[in-house]
Amino acid sequence: MEKIFENVSNNVSLIHSITNYVTVNDVANVILASKASPIMADEKQEVSEITNICDALLLNIGTLNERVVTSMMIAGETANKKGIPIIFDPVGAGASTYRSEVAKNIVKTLHPTIIRGNVSEIKALFTDEQATRGVDASDLDIINDSNLEESIKMVAKFAREAATIIVVSSEYDLISDGSTTYVVKNGCSEMSKITGTGCMLSAVVASYVAANVENTLKAAMYAVAIVGFSGELASFKAAGFSSMKMHFIDEISKMDVEVLKKGIRYEKA
Amino acid sequence: MEKIFENVSNNVSLIHSITNYVTVNDVANVILASKASPIMADEKQEVSEITNICDALLLNIGTLNERVVTSMMIAGETANKKGIPIIFDPVGAGASTYRSEVAKNIVKTLHPTIIRGNVSEIKALFTDEQATRGVDASDLDIINDSNLEESIKMVAKFAREAATIIVVSSEYDLISDGSTTYVVKNGCSEMSKITGTGCMLSAVVASYVAANVENTLKAAMYAVAIVGFSGELASFKAAGFSSMKMHFIDEISKMDVEVLKKGIRYEKA
Amino acid sequence: MEKIFENVSNNVSLIHSITNYVTVNDVANVILASKASPIMADEKQEVSEITNICDALLLNIGTLNERVVTSMMIAGETANKKGIPIIFDPVGAGASTYRSEVAKNIVKTLHPTIIRGNVSEIKALFTDEQATRGVDASDLDIINDSNLEESIKMVAKFAREAATIIVVSSEYDLISDGSTTYVVKNGCSEMSKITGTGCMLSAVVASYVAANVENTLKAAMYAVAIVGFSGELASFKAAGFSSMKMHFIDEISKMDVEVLKKGIRYEKA
Repeated sequence: MEKIFENVSNNVSLIHSITNYVTVNDVANVILASKASPIMADEKQEVSEITNICDALLLNIGTLNERVVTSMMIAGETANKKGIPIIFDPVGAGASTYRSEVAKNIVKTLHPTIIRGNVSEIKALFTDEQATRGVDASDLDIINDSNLEESIKMVAKFAREAATIIVVSSEYDLISDGSTTYVVKNGCSEMSKITGTGCMLSAVVASYVAANVENTLKAAMYAVAIVGFSGELASFKAAGFSSMKMHFIDEISKMDVEVLKKGIRYEKA
Repeated sequence: MEKIFENVSNNVSLIHSITNYVTVNDVANVILASKASPIMADEKQEVSEITNICDALLLNIGTLNERVVTSMMIAGETANKKGIPIIFDPVGAGASTYRSEVAKNIVKTLHPTIIRGNVSEIKALFTDEQATRGVDASDLDIINDSNLEESIKMVAKFAREAATIIVVSSEYDLISDGSTTYVVKNGCSEMSKITGTGCMLSAVVASYVAANVENTLKAAMYAVAIVGFSGELASFKAAGFSSMKMHFIDEISKMDVEVLKKGIRYEKA
Repeated sequence: MEKIFENVSNNVSLIHSITNYVTVNDVANVILASKASPIMADEKQEVSEITNICDALLLNIGTLNERVVTSMMIAGETANKKGIPIIFDPVGAGASTYRSEVAKNIVKTLHPTIIRGNVSEIKALFTDEQATRGVDASDLDIINDSNLEESIKMVAKFAREAATIIVVSSEYDLISDGSTTYVVKNGCSEMSKITGTGCMLSAVVASYVAANVENTLKAAMYAVAIVGFSGELASFKAAGFSSMKMHFIDEISKMDVEVLKKGIRYEKA
């Protein structure tokens, strides 16, 4: 655990983010808060060079369009050639045919190191279900004690199929590489009242994985715990939805291994 | 009044927003704060499908471009076919020929359910005046006791002409369907010091109207009051322009029918 | 000094900003906080008309793309024809060939009144060095007591070459028109933990220069001091990176000549 945090602090990884314009500012700020450094660039003429100076590539299709999808594919190929991790957030997969096709194509062509989404999005990638109602998690998306075992099996199966690490966010978060699955029980309901909690989680995962390429599963698991526990701490201070966001990013920026040790709640499935 | 709030709480309406990239994060967050759920998508290949799973369409031309205007027209046609409300915010209409033409075309072709703007923008839509100075309200835009009667007449006339509900924001806000006009006297000067107050107001109107399609005029009126009263409450807590925005969104997220009853100041003209 | 602040307060300059989508909301809000008024517009069909109603043009290439670069060139030509100042922020110049070429072309073709960047970005514009590592300042970018004299000489030389005012941000900030150079020693390390500090600085410079076209060097210098001193004040109140941003914008919005007099630390080189 200490080693993972040490690597994050010592590396100041540069994260090339091609992401949506709704939550991009929060994504940049949580990358800084998690001790990495963001660069946003989506013009096809430069994305390959930008990815080449970076330590990880974060792809988020929240407000995808044809121009930016082209840039994502170019950047992704460069990331693979260079051997740096790709973190993919399939925002809203399942909400439209175009979005689902783009998301599936990214998985198939670029083989992301990590895929991070809610239950509907992950199902939309690996099954033919079309359950997504918008970009925010719905009641159908819950993983809790009532369906934990079957959820773990499902996520592990998807992870094996795609030979990737899958992070599914819900009441309980699952992090699986297909053989090992962690369950993280941090987090709180107030986090779903902020737009971009998922985008920010993917960004923190990118920061942690970029600095720990030898230990990506555990790095992703700690990133998930950091975000969940930061949300819990923020919820005690928040006076409404907007101060919740501020305290949430504040807590991420103050998080370190000693703080996390007190709050992390996880188990190996 | 209770019924309108109940509908909002019970429905969690999904709002498809095609909006500007300046205030889009605040728009998404106030949609959540007003108990609805946002989805932002502007790629022409998917907007029709996205609108089809939503309960209202919010169009805001703050940073319009040709690509996105095409998507707005496609989404608007789908909204009309499906019979869900369109809320249109003609940001900066009058500031350029292109912007005025696009705005007039949206009104003429898509027949929005609600048009929400400041005085200059509304005049630019319905007259040949070109008074807009930028995207923020100017001193020329004030509706107060000195010109209330003539302002009401003007707005009601525009509403009849376009067979729509017009919401004009100023010191006093007017909400008119051409036959009935409400005057809302909530709000405060600090709100004009935040970028996007108008965009956020349109978003809250969208949340309330989406859940109250049988009672759109009153839903819009209460949304205007909520935003104005939230601004008043926030202004007592703000220590500058940025904390003003945070408290403003916090107050919207905490607003309910009992709180609003204490603060709402409105009359039927 | 009083005169420069008076001009800002009396003019409410309108600033046409073509800027990146990462920090655009913060840029708009600091323009309001520094008593000017923002308008963001980047569609080529309207940028010339928009620039024509404005008092300054702010160009920021943080998330440049071909479409927007075309609009920047059109708006820039209009600004020059109208004789209003152009403030140019070459975000990430040096990080890619495309970005460097666009930045150099803007300098050569549009002759900005002010160029504001970090050390790497300014070097990328005027030398063949490619030192930029992302869009945030790196350790190589520091101007402090150890290299102050040579940094002043370098910046003054670049300013003479381009016949412009150059503002370089670092531990010490330099503001030079080639013959006179000011050193501003305000600011604090917490400011580098927020994305967009540089973008916001360029925006405040634009607000001050727009209202002081007869005295651009001093206007830029005071803008730099305001931003640095606001950061210092904010750092005493911040509980993390996100509240740092809120307090920072709050302090800018409360800054006036009497407050600044107490905190400004500058010298003429």
